[in-house]
Amino acid sequence: MTAARESMINAFDPAAADQLPREERQMVQRRAHLLGGSYKLFYKQPIHVVRGEGVWLYGPGEERYLDAYNNVPNVGHCHPRVTDAVSRQMATLNTHTRYLNEAILRYSADLLATFPTHLDKIMYTTTGSEAGDLALRIARYETGGEGVIALANAYHGLTAATVEISPSMGPNVPVGRSVWLVTPPDQYREGPEVEKAFAGRIRAAIADMQRHGVKLAAMVIDSIMSSDGVFSEPVGILGSAVKVVHEHGGLFIADEVQPGFGRVGTHFWGFERHGADPDIVVMGKPMANGVPIAGIVLRSATLERFGSSVRYFNTFGGNTVSIAAAQATLDVLREENLQENARLVGQHLMSGLRDIGMRFERLGDVRGSGLFIGVDFVRDAQTKVPDGDLALQVVNGLRDRNILISASGKAGNVLKIRPPLPFSNDNADQLIEALNDVLKAVS
Amino acid sequence: MTAARESMINAFDPAAADQLPREERQMVQRRAHLLGGSYKLFYKQPIHVVRGEGVWLYGPGEERYLDAYNNVPNVGHCHPRVTDAVSRQMATLNTHTRYLNEAILRYSADLLATFPTHLDKIMYTTTGSEAGDLALRIARYETGGEGVIALANAYHGLTAATVEISPSMGPNVPVGRSVWLVTPPDQYREGPEVEKAFAGRIRAAIADMQRHGVKLAAMVIDSIMSSDGVFSEPVGILGSAVKVVHEHGGLFIADEVQPGFGRVGTHFWGFERHGADPDIVVMGKPMANGVPIAGIVLRSATLERFGSSVRYFNTFGGNTVSIAAAQATLDVLREENLQENARLVGQHLMSGLRDIGMRFERLGDVRGSGLFIGVDFVRDAQTKVPDGDLALQVVNGLRDRNILISASGKAGNVLKIRPPLPFSNDNADQLIEALNDVLKAVS
Repeated sequence: MTAARESMINAFDPAAADQLPREERQMVQRRAHLLGGSYKLFYKQPIHVVRGEGVWLYGPGEERYLDAYNNVPNVGHCHPRVTDAVSRQMATLNTHTRYLNEAILRYSADLLATFPTHLDKIMYTTTGSEAGDLALRIARYETGGEGVIALANAYHGLTAATVEISPSMGPNVPVGRSVWLVTPPDQYREGPEVEKAFAGRIRAAIADMQRHGVKLAAMVIDSIMSSDGVFSEPVGILGSAVKVVHEHGGLFIADEVQPGFGRVGTHFWGFERHGADPDIVVMGKPMANGVPIAGIVLRSATLERFGSSVRYFNTFGGNTVSIAAAQATLDVLREENLQENARLVGQHLMSGLRDIGMRFERLGDVRGSGLFIGVDFVRDAQTKVPDGDLALQVVNGLRDRNILISASGKAGNVLKIRPPLPFSNDNADQLIEALNDVLKAVS
Repeated sequence: MTAARESMINAFDPAAADQLPREERQMVQRRAHLLGGSYKLFYKQPIHVVRGEGVWLYGPGEERYLDAYNNVPNVGHCHPRVTDAVSRQMATLNTHTRYLNEAILRYSADLLATFPTHLDKIMYTTTGSEAGDLALRIARYETGGEGVIALANAYHGLTAATVEISPSMGPNVPVGRSVWLVTPPDQYREGPEVEKAFAGRIRAAIADMQRHGVKLAAMVIDSIMSSDGVFSEPVGILGSAVKVVHEHGGLFIADEVQPGFGRVGTHFWGFERHGADPDIVVMGKPMANGVPIAGIVLRSATLERFGSSVRYFNTFGGNTVSIAAAQATLDVLREENLQENARLVGQHLMSGLRDIGMRFERLGDVRGSGLFIGVDFVRDAQTKVPDGDLALQVVNGLRDRNILISASGKAGNVLKIRPPLPFSNDNADQLIEALNDVLKAVS
């Protein structure tokens, strides 16, 4: 049990339920009784929510929380355009892809237009896990290989196949025997040599894989390296890594579940920022603002054998309601210029966070792109030893000041800032001020 | 390509697109261009739908189709109660299970009350595939075994792990090396010995598995054996099969994605009809009338090790909107007595189908329970050789008469009747009359 708790950053400890107010205590007990031990709550003192709007979540007494954590409501909690689209479509038709329907064709063309032209096919699933799972099936089918390279603390899903490439699940969930893990590129600690070093680690992993008689199928990387600790620099590093994989006959699967859909600000997709050339792109969470839909985009050539010999039908994947929600979400994203907002507010926020870093040396590094930002806490600026305890204190300190956030990285020492995209400069200032406050209190 | 097409019953052949009306022809071409080869449409002449209501689907010219196929809209297409619940919840809050929220606790207690008391824990996923995948993960974790027994033409999902136990996907999708297939019990052809014979086949599979050094983890069976050809008799046969599995230390995973939620009429769950004792129950499709939600129900003891050492978080699984939809669907199911309707209309329909069988000997058998009915077509009543060609003619003949239906079974010879549960005796009579018509035309 210790291991499970240790492997999850910022989990509520059910043994502390006694200290909660009565209503919340009872809810915690009913959850344990009904849902079982695998379900975890966030925070030392869990949040109870009843309403959401824009960047805000509300508790039962109308107390409000600034949401700097949830990327699923990409265009803001309960956006009326998405609600309307879903309500209308629910009342009209909700069916699957084995009948002809116009809406899925329109949306597919619209979404594919955001990709380089050679990425020209889309397949729908219901969840990001299913999309990652399908990407692995196709990569293995097309290459005839089994081997996969993933980052050392990656998360790519919860199906049996994707959990095998998700070492962040902790020691009780084994990494697959065809999976080789690579330490992520950490420019803050590795310095200017990081690009060469990272490519070298990938070469070494491929060589070791071959030595074990395993053929390379794919490298899977989230292009903002979210669960590894948000490694965004130097720009272009992912592009060079992908070249190595392509030289060895492997495919590159870009997991865009975290950075995709405008979040990185400078680009619509995270892989574009690095000039990386994916063979399959995995999409998920923010695609329809919380309505379940996900998918993969890939080259016609990559789908050639699989597409002509294996059928794929996903009951809910691309159903008419989820497509209506995805279309409304994409329309809002563009009409409200949320990618540009992510870029501008992200700059403002990073600059404010760096100011704090000037005064507080244990805030060692601020990095990221747009509204996906990591704040790296260390024991001291010289050794740069990760300080997960401090990050956890900050997460809970912010929660006590009604700001929602979490941490990531193997040591849990990197604050992960990933709000709904309508986050404003004022919201950013509130976060900066509160963080300043918390750091004064803990230091 | 041939194999892929052959392995799917009732798939549209894209080579025949030239013969479609202009609008549909263009949609078919755009689908191929955008979605790729794995996507299949139903019927010789695909259906184009724009609206749904109750047991009806409507085309662009308001032509209507009687839906005798879709079990996802369990309480009827676009039921206003479900639409309202989703609209209200979309406008209020749509978030995940790591914050406290009352609705998931209320629904969980409500749903668990439909199960035997020892099945007392529920875990939510987004799709039935994910639920089956999670059930396999837990069964393997708890037993320490890898081996799975499944039926010879089963379908249990599309993730890498569940597709391995889904031989109905055809020859291009390999069955897993830890998977042993067993011929389903066919009372129509095997006669009264079927129960003993089926248990014998399971014993033999377990012995062969052990001989190969593979430890049994679980047997997975859909209790209406839908894709194998709807084998429902004799009542109790599944119960005896499960006893064999338990004797050998394996778990029984009841896949209730097809028969669950009142469809079999006599019981709320298909396994209950057989007095079978599942360790894990997998639920999916009809759970929220088309809104993606699925899950597993299991004993506390079965979740003991997994629950205390592995965390499970499914982004969309059990989110507040899907729970609202599931609650409304369950409420409607009960308030409109749809399980009882399934039982009564199912009897009426089976009796009408058997009348046709008296006059038309190639309609060899009618079986099923409630509104899950199989009609077995044969070359002649003596040899009982399955006649997939005739079933396919019937499926397309009914489509030409605006009735939607499909076929199942390894030979594709079994009509699969599985309408939304508000199907009435009048709807049943329309289906019977049309079938009569089609059979006159083809014979």
